[in-house]
Amino acid sequence: MRHQHSGPNPDKVGPDWINHRLEVCYDGTPWAGWQRQPDKPTVQEALERALEECWGRPLTVHGSGRTDAGVHALAQTAHFFAPPRFATEKLTDILNNHLPASIRVLRVRQVPRSFHARFSAVGKEYHYQVANVRHLSPFLLNRVWHVPRPLNMDVVREAMELLVGQHDFASFTSNPGYERESTVRTIDKFTVKKVGPGLWRWQIRGDGFLFRMVRNIMGAMVKVGHGRLKIEDIRVILAARDRSQAPNTAPAGGLYLARVFYRRIK
Amino acid sequence: MRHQHSGPNPDKVGPDWINHRLEVCYDGTPWAGWQRQPDKPTVQEALERALEECWGRPLTVHGSGRTDAGVHALAQTAHFFAPPRFATEKLTDILNNHLPASIRVLRVRQVPRSFHARFSAVGKEYHYQVANVRHLSPFLLNRVWHVPRPLNMDVVREAMELLVGQHDFASFTSNPGYERESTVRTIDKFTVKKVGPGLWRWQIRGDGFLFRMVRNIMGAMVKVGHGRLKIEDIRVILAARDRSQAPNTAPAGGLYLARVFYRRIK
Repeated sequence: MRHQHSGPNPDKVGPDWINHRLEVCYDGTPWAGWQRQPDKPTVQEALERALEECWGRPLTVHGSGRTDAGVHALAQTAHFFAPPRFATEKLTDILNNHLPASIRVLRVRQVPRSFHARFSAVGKEYHYQVANVRHLSPFLLNRVWHVPRPLNMDVVREAMELLVGQHDFASFTSNPGYERESTVRTIDKFTVKKVGPGLWRWQIRGDGFLFRMVRNIMGAMVKVGHGRLKIEDIRVILAARDRSQAPNTAPAGGLYLARVFYRRIK
Repeated sequence: MRHQHSGPNPDKVGPDWINHRLEVCYDGTPWAGWQRQPDKPTVQEALERALEECWGRPLTVHGSGRTDAGVHALAQTAHFFAPPRFATEKLTDILNNHLPASIRVLRVRQVPRSFHARFSAVGKEYHYQVANVRHLSPFLLNRVWHVPRPLNMDVVREAMELLVGQHDFASFTSNPGYERESTVRTIDKFTVKKVGPGLWRWQIRGDGFLFRMVRNIMGAMVKVGHGRLKIEDIRVILAARDRSQAPNTAPAGGLYLARVFYRRIK
């Protein structure tokens, strides 16, 4: 188990409580990340505050995983148990009325009690956006990594291929606190396409991602695109399985948690 | 002359000074509009500060017109006179290094001394964006007018046709201070297209726009789309030529000054 369980004691969940699955979109810019912290505003805390306002009692939201400060979500998934009180189909509207505009609930569904946003997840997809332009549009501020110097996208694509499949990604994580945990992960999709003038969007899908893994991979890809790392260097870094090899971490503002995958619920 | 001339006394412009034309893009959210104000941050002030840092003396920037607080620009046009000091082709980079990231200079050109960003302008194009969706994406905050209730776009298009051509738009301006000025303007293009899920972009082009004219027109169009005004009402409001008839002003965040037109410079 990667993170300490932050929820209420499970036996505080009443036998008639309903398990709700949430899809949540947020602009990460004003938030100190997903996970509740003592003295900084976080997305989890904002959601739990909205639930408390609706139910009149503290309730705990469990996310599929943390996102760092400044990282966005197109569809973070979370779950919470609560006593029956509102028609589920009205909860999206109700919760959004209690949330700041930078956080929007997209969908609320009733799910079996066994569903857990983190432990039931079988994969995730992230997007990462780079604006490879000389002057960054003010409308893309905090939404992309601004990379002014031209990227050689042919070699970037070649380097991306090296990372697809099952690998030990120890060299691409930043956190020494995870030392006892396996760092083997499988990336089953890693693509990039142009979505605007000089605007590139990467999509990366896998069975799980280590702390800062996507941002460290993106830091390496941009170095490859600038010719400061060669394809062979990526091969060597990956093979080293050594956290001290981690290349520069790409900025948070370019990263979007796009989707969390679960097995079909029976 | 609509606005008081804010520049330095013209005879303070030296005979060897160069007239520079700027195209400037800005996110209007953090700014109290274009025009310099005593105690609020404005785009004009930020540009003049950048020029002063570069030239070591106060210089005045003249815009094509004011934009209100919160209104954006894709390409506001401005001009300033300054002594020869920098290669013009380097000025875009130099100025952007001295500007906050919410303001970007797109282009700087030398122009004849007779060019004046406001008095030489022969037309303008604005864009206005409406998100006609139940829950607004956090990424569109301050970039669109969020209109949750469905719009009937067929009647909106019908109402738009009534406004194309030369009309007295007195009923669509908000400012009683312009009473002595003609309120006749010509709209030569007024279109709307879908640019995303529930996302509509209007484009309006004309020889000039009265104070709050685009936002007042958009306020009326959304009322038409909701059936709260009929096509015939728009005809009546337009014919009234009466400022007190002005419908609700649409929010600033949906409005973009997209382009300023000038006669070809010989």
